[in-house]
Amino acid sequence: MGGTSVLNKLNDECGVFGVFDRDDHDVAFLSYIALYALQHRGQESCGIAVNDDGVITAHKDVGLVPDVFNKDVLAKLGKGQMAVGHVRYSTMGNASRSNAQPLYIRHIKGPMVLAHNGALVNARELREELEMGGAIFHSTNDSEVIAYMITKERLQCGSIEEAVERAMKHLRGAYSLVIMSPTKLIAARDPNGFRPLCMGTLDNSTIFASESCALDSLGAKFVRDIEPGEIVVVDKEEERSIKTHCGHKCNMCVFEYVYIARPDSVIEGSSVHEARQRAGAYLALQHPVQADVVIGVPDSGLDAALGFAKQSGIPYGVGFIKNRYVGRTFIQPTQVQRENAVRIKLNALEATVRGKRVVLIDDSIVRGTTSARIVDLLKEAGATEVHMRISSPPFRNPCYFGVDVDSRDKLLACRMSEEEMARHIGVDSLGFLSVEDVQKIAGIPGSEFCVGCFTGNYPIDVPGEMPKDKFEQKISKKQK
Amino acid sequence: MGGTSVLNKLNDECGVFGVFDRDDHDVAFLSYIALYALQHRGQESCGIAVNDDGVITAHKDVGLVPDVFNKDVLAKLGKGQMAVGHVRYSTMGNASRSNAQPLYIRHIKGPMVLAHNGALVNARELREELEMGGAIFHSTNDSEVIAYMITKERLQCGSIEEAVERAMKHLRGAYSLVIMSPTKLIAARDPNGFRPLCMGTLDNSTIFASESCALDSLGAKFVRDIEPGEIVVVDKEEERSIKTHCGHKCNMCVFEYVYIARPDSVIEGSSVHEARQRAGAYLALQHPVQADVVIGVPDSGLDAALGFAKQSGIPYGVGFIKNRYVGRTFIQPTQVQRENAVRIKLNALEATVRGKRVVLIDDSIVRGTTSARIVDLLKEAGATEVHMRISSPPFRNPCYFGVDVDSRDKLLACRMSEEEMARHIGVDSLGFLSVEDVQKIAGIPGSEFCVGCFTGNYPIDVPGEMPKDKFEQKISKKQK
Amino acid sequence: MGGTSVLNKLNDECGVFGVFDRDDHDVAFLSYIALYALQHRGQESCGIAVNDDGVITAHKDVGLVPDVFNKDVLAKLGKGQMAVGHVRYSTMGNASRSNAQPLYIRHIKGPMVLAHNGALVNARELREELEMGGAIFHSTNDSEVIAYMITKERLQCGSIEEAVERAMKHLRGAYSLVIMSPTKLIAARDPNGFRPLCMGTLDNSTIFASESCALDSLGAKFVRDIEPGEIVVVDKEEERSIKTHCGHKCNMCVFEYVYIARPDSVIEGSSVHEARQRAGAYLALQHPVQADVVIGVPDSGLDAALGFAKQSGIPYGVGFIKNRYVGRTFIQPTQVQRENAVRIKLNALEATVRGKRVVLIDDSIVRGTTSARIVDLLKEAGATEVHMRISSPPFRNPCYFGVDVDSRDKLLACRMSEEEMARHIGVDSLGFLSVEDVQKIAGIPGSEFCVGCFTGNYPIDVPGEMPKDKFEQKISKKQK
Amino acid sequence: MGGTSVLNKLNDECGVFGVFDRDDHDVAFLSYIALYALQHRGQESCGIAVNDDGVITAHKDVGLVPDVFNKDVLAKLGKGQMAVGHVRYSTMGNASRSNAQPLYIRHIKGPMVLAHNGALVNARELREELEMGGAIFHSTNDSEVIAYMITKERLQCGSIEEAVERAMKHLRGAYSLVIMSPTKLIAARDPNGFRPLCMGTLDNSTIFASESCALDSLGAKFVRDIEPGEIVVVDKEEERSIKTHCGHKCNMCVFEYVYIARPDSVIEGSSVHEARQRAGAYLALQHPVQADVVIGVPDSGLDAALGFAKQSGIPYGVGFIKNRYVGRTFIQPTQVQRENAVRIKLNALEATVRGKRVVLIDDSIVRGTTSARIVDLLKEAGATEVHMRISSPPFRNPCYFGVDVDSRDKLLACRMSEEEMARHIGVDSLGFLSVEDVQKIAGIPGSEFCVGCFTGNYPIDVPGEMPKDKFEQKISKKQK
Repeated sequence: MGGTSVLNKLNDECGVFGVFDRDDHDVAFLSYIALYALQHRGQESCGIAVNDDGVITAHKDVGLVPDVFNKDVLAKLGKGQMAVGHVRYSTMGNASRSNAQPLYIRHIKGPMVLAHNGALVNARELREELEMGGAIFHSTNDSEVIAYMITKERLQCGSIEEAVERAMKHLRGAYSLVIMSPTKLIAARDPNGFRPLCMGTLDNSTIFASESCALDSLGAKFVRDIEPGEIVVVDKEEERSIKTHCGHKCNMCVFEYVYIARPDSVIEGSSVHEARQRAGAYLALQHPVQADVVIGVPDSGLDAALGFAKQSGIPYGVGFIKNRYVGRTFIQPTQVQRENAVRIKLNALEATVRGKRVVLIDDSIVRGTTSARIVDLLKEAGATEVHMRISSPPFRNPCYFGVDVDSRDKLLACRMSEEEMARHIGVDSLGFLSVEDVQKIAGIPGSEFCVGCFTGNYPIDVPGEMPKDKFEQKISKKQK
Repeated sequence: MGGTSVLNKLNDECGVFGVFDRDDHDVAFLSYIALYALQHRGQESCGIAVNDDGVITAHKDVGLVPDVFNKDVLAKLGKGQMAVGHVRYSTMGNASRSNAQPLYIRHIKGPMVLAHNGALVNARELREELEMGGAIFHSTNDSEVIAYMITKERLQCGSIEEAVERAMKHLRGAYSLVIMSPTKLIAARDPNGFRPLCMGTLDNSTIFASESCALDSLGAKFVRDIEPGEIVVVDKEEERSIKTHCGHKCNMCVFEYVYIARPDSVIEGSSVHEARQRAGAYLALQHPVQADVVIGVPDSGLDAALGFAKQSGIPYGVGFIKNRYVGRTFIQPTQVQRENAVRIKLNALEATVRGKRVVLIDDSIVRGTTSARIVDLLKEAGATEVHMRISSPPFRNPCYFGVDVDSRDKLLACRMSEEEMARHIGVDSLGFLSVEDVQKIAGIPGSEFCVGCFTGNYPIDVPGEMPKDKFEQKISKKQK
Repeated sequence: MGGTSVLNKLNDECGVFGVFDRDDHDVAFLSYIALYALQHRGQESCGIAVNDDGVITAHKDVGLVPDVFNKDVLAKLGKGQMAVGHVRYSTMGNASRSNAQPLYIRHIKGPMVLAHNGALVNARELREELEMGGAIFHSTNDSEVIAYMITKERLQCGSIEEAVERAMKHLRGAYSLVIMSPTKLIAARDPNGFRPLCMGTLDNSTIFASESCALDSLGAKFVRDIEPGEIVVVDKEEERSIKTHCGHKCNMCVFEYVYIARPDSVIEGSSVHEARQRAGAYLALQHPVQADVVIGVPDSGLDAALGFAKQSGIPYGVGFIKNRYVGRTFIQPTQVQRENAVRIKLNALEATVRGKRVVLIDDSIVRGTTSARIVDLLKEAGATEVHMRISSPPFRNPCYFGVDVDSRDKLLACRMSEEEMARHIGVDSLGFLSVEDVQKIAGIPGSEFCVGCFTGNYPIDVPGEMPKDKFEQKISKKQK
Repeated sequence: MGGTSVLNKLNDECGVFGVFDRDDHDVAFLSYIALYALQHRGQESCGIAVNDDGVITAHKDVGLVPDVFNKDVLAKLGKGQMAVGHVRYSTMGNASRSNAQPLYIRHIKGPMVLAHNGALVNARELREELEMGGAIFHSTNDSEVIAYMITKERLQCGSIEEAVERAMKHLRGAYSLVIMSPTKLIAARDPNGFRPLCMGTLDNSTIFASESCALDSLGAKFVRDIEPGEIVVVDKEEERSIKTHCGHKCNMCVFEYVYIARPDSVIEGSSVHEARQRAGAYLALQHPVQADVVIGVPDSGLDAALGFAKQSGIPYGVGFIKNRYVGRTFIQPTQVQRENAVRIKLNALEATVRGKRVVLIDDSIVRGTTSARIVDLLKEAGATEVHMRISSPPFRNPCYFGVDVDSRDKLLACRMSEEEMARHIGVDSLGFLSVEDVQKIAGIPGSEFCVGCFTGNYPIDVPGEMPKDKFEQKISKKQK
């Protein structure tokens, strides 16, 4: 479960939620609960918009769900028949509040609320086109681009869903969307299905969410995943599907299974928890080692460690205790004290590792610094050997579809061979899951997951690389 | 000084500020100080945007200047060569944060920051036109309409100032603007000059502000008012004026002198403090009375009371003590306790009024409820007679130019004759300043102030009246 | 009104409040309102304790009344039949929360709540004695000493009021107390009556407060001042007075009239507002001058200015506009910007002073720095002459009775003659109220106010001077 | 690890910390880090007191460590040579801030800071005695009683440590103390050793802490446990031990191993993590069952589950995912929504339990309500059988030594037989660890742990039971 990783290696992206109520539920409260369950997908900002008979009230801000929403704020959102929620990790600039979602826009054709998880590869082109036509942008969000594209089409056609369907012809990249008009709730997923999006029911009400764990938190029933390319429209009368963009194979991000999603979610019919155990089992087969105990880095390495233990027959142990109270507000120590930073969050369990040959499972290596410190903890606690196994292939390429991977010059795997990495981190051996195996962890035969961050081969064309901050400045300096 | 009125009768509107630095001042801090001085013009939200060599950083939020800005926030705004600030009272909906200014928009032609005081009479028309052309709106602000209009023109012409000049052909109504591009700071005032806007210098730097008191707070020198219709452009090289829209007589809002502006400001060459004293003097001439003491309702009635006292020869006295600590966070008492609400903010000074015939000066009567309670306070403190004098004519009409007057059915002067009002409020006599006299208080011969809220005759055509909330809902419900 | 002084020259001390309800009022809310009215007596911390049938609930914290109390906090205090409130300016150490009042102590003889305004001259002796007997102290408050003394006596006698009466034999100095036991509310004032304390009724309920303005804020009726030395005991059955310590002349602090109390309060039968006007009048007689306008420094100098104007015949004017929004949270500017600090809070009204000979009235001069800056403001605004008149004699001695005067080496009047002071501040002439006249401002013939801070002669013996911080450290370092 | 239990079954008590620095460490920051590591011992309030050459600065408040301490607060605590820290769960009244620790008292013999974990059985007697001698109490803390007792003795003897030694003759019950005088840091543990207290070194500095995990978090070395009855005194010159109260066997609370302590702590030479695994293993031997998977209730049931799995040979599985973001600020749902409350914090992993016979391990059953809901979650997720095993004996008696067990009438084990409990909770079988076995889990032969809460037999005499709230009111109502 990404958000709780001790290592903060990768920034997750976003989680979306929507509910169309037919049972007099408190839709603001349902959204609040669901965003809690999706919090691991984005910890920087969050928001909820409630639709009461066409009148929309929204609240969003920088902060975790419990920081942004309290009793008073929920009360002000009021009652309604529909709601859309969003959690976000924003990656651009520090004007993060302006990037918080859901996006709420006003228009003569009616207001629209939009929540988006993903990233477009042609966002800059579309944006330039729109701006040359007179559009102005308040944020650096792709979501605003999507909103413009839908609005533009809406002027040419008879309904919001038709507008979405037409706009999708122009959008290239990853997008799982929940959209709310005065009378309709719409879910849409890009034709490649890069990001998850599912559907459930609570009594007679319809719910959309990035992951099934959000449905569970509400006591709602999982119905199915939205298909790649599918648009589902819900209103008072009916619930119908537009499938003109369907047909492509699902290229979902395999890293959702490895790290991003919550282990209790089921995505594309496959349990995330089981996928991680399977990743551990493949590692055991591919990189066997003589050892006394298998431990995982909390929390996301634990499932794979259990899988490795079961496959290898080496006993599973608890190697680390994580301090549950160290949160975002932790005061950063000075340089001298910084070396203790990992130790404050994580303590090695001497009882488990002293005098033992340890297999240490983690889900990924990004810069390698934290890995090195964790290995130090184990050595100081008396581990005689540390064999590190990583439940994914080495990161060597950027993600264009919504995950904020470090820039290449900071990725350890771009700078070193595996032997050098092992030496750098201080382990006795190091093994990564192969690209072939990572595609098998979901246990879906014939699947074509996106593994671009490992291989550099992406399911669709991607733009040439350009650092985000350069891009920002370029925009800023043009006008005279 | 409106914002501190005990009576909260009228909601003020907005204050704008801009600085183009040539002396290495801390522009964020200058803005902070200036917004403090302009706080009386808007207490609901505020914001500052800083431009550092084309990179813009902004912060705005709901709250007073000291609530929204602290040391950390100012530090994050960083250093820069230009800044724009804004204080606002927002009148629409409760999504007030999205209405906070300055507006910061991104565009391929460069980012733009815009701060606006005023209101357009053709905002709805322009908005509909823009939306039919594909525009989407994040707020209900007129400012966003203005930003769109400028952007649209910008695509057709060579510079931001030319775009402003071209956009102004389409804008009808009240607007005092401060606009910031990557390299320029621009001030513009509508051709009627409804709202004030002035210019000053601090060392070699140029400053724009709604009122001269903001210049004083910085120790800056007042240079001149921006002319009605004028555009002033400042960049590294020069400072120049575009006067194609000039030529119209100044129709500034006379209520700026009566209530809105700070007494220490000088507007159109005339001291607000003196204007208020003059209003009191005219009242004494027009509505003389035998009395023992003249008192004012703090704070905005005090100056006029002094003027009345001097003109009439009746001694000036301090009739009320205002509790300086009762602010926005005051807990509203229950129904039973509510009658004390005025008393908590204001206490009558028995030593001044007991056994006396009192002339009570206030700047306006809106609903009359608070006036009645204030008169009660005086009676309970032993005043034998209370003669109320109002330093403006009766309010009977809406303002279309940026002041949020109560709806007609709540305005006492729309429902009663002056005699009935006197009886309703419980005073022995009641006198208003005449429309003729109010136009003379600034002491500017031949002036053509806007007195539309008193007479119903406005300097430019105004749209048919429509309640704001209806308008909001109409927008909201359209889309299917 | 001290707390709102722009100059923050002197720290006020404390305000006390108590209510014994017989009408089903909300005693917590009454306390809240009353503390608002007494806020000028102490802005550092505040607290309320509610007694519901012997069960006491209390809340106190550092901050202004609106910061410390909100709806939720008041709700938690609950309903009750008695309440005690306190506002405080604490002068010792930074552990100010531990010094917040009212003091709530538990004891086998029942709990006791105590609120205190004043200072004991024998606090250190009593404290040492108590500590040598085994007592421990949580605070540096004299109040804790008083609580101990009462408790000690309580063990020897039959009732709380008898214990108060016996304890008073040992207490020397200034104390206006409100004390609450499970069933009684008690008010007591030291035999010299250094600090004010009055009594009122709201319907059938009894109220005690430091100043009558607190009664007014509740709509309560003023009954009388508590006599010097008097103890008033209120319980369900009756209200009775213990006068064994009465008989001494009232030596109330004259500075209550000059600066501390709110102008709308009436103390010892004399209106504070009128006393200040009288001070101005005496100044006009004692230090006449040829001038064009009389102005006061807001807010506490305004009343005296009006008195000076009336006596002298020189017109009264508004010389300064105070920014009502600049509060405690104002960000302190850097060294360079500091010179503007006064200007931000205060702006001179050029319309009033340009080209004029100005009489400037203030209530006191402490260090002189702010006075000098204010005079600068007037000169820059065009005043041709500035004649400063101070409505009290020069400060040259410490106060031992609850007002925190600066240390002698910082008091301007200890370092300079009046001529030197005038030159230092930059005024054309300077005049102080004489010690004789200041004793007459309350208009109470034969009064023997305490004027020790002006003369060095105190109504009772005072200890040798010792800087507070030294005292603190001495305590701290002793134990081995 | 208690504090993070999803079930909030038992309130933990307190954690203490002290540092005597000889290396120029930042003692406030060290305390902050250590309190983070001890946070699970008390989440209601916390505090730190810093001693800089005899001048003490303290800060404490209601809230978690990250809520109470931030950069500014730590900076204000300043540098020093000693510090004492405390985390607390307070159990009396709502005046919880007054109960926050460390206690900082002033006295002529020097100030003293005291942090306490435990509870005295003769607190009421001592308190009454003290109060009859004139003492007053600010809190309902036993710590204040201890402070008084030490102070009383201090007046009779030559040093603080001698005073502690003499006071201990009068104190009966549980106390692990850290005490700071101007020049000394003292640790003391009651003669029965009810609560843990250990000692470590960081470079040349001495550290005391409730648990060794606090030492680990600082990178400090564990030296040894303080012996039952021992007093350790540290000053500039030396470190010495007073053992006059030593000699009694250690009666440490066995529940420290079961639930309270962090698994990575080592207490009395025994790893908490291993003790819990051993508890699981004993359970497997005592209450064997045919099943497919063993799961634990996060977090405190996980270790025992692993022990059960290893002993029984039944595979270990992850049965629940805990939402790491649901904290104290979670908005309580309405009655209708309340049934989802457990589900929001905890989700059952269908992949692990569907179609399986499940062994469910938890550390205790208090009221049984949450247990029942958790079993429901498993059934809904498809578990075919649920066999519950509890890693401690049934709770049937109060704890007099610092753990806040529910009152008897709410304890399920006081109201039902084990069979009835199983039926009530809805499990197919239920087994508790026996009293004999729980005493063996630490693996210390001949140990005499306190198991009074399970058996009703306590190592020392305890007072007759009296509900705490009754006690409170009794105190409150006495005085007339």
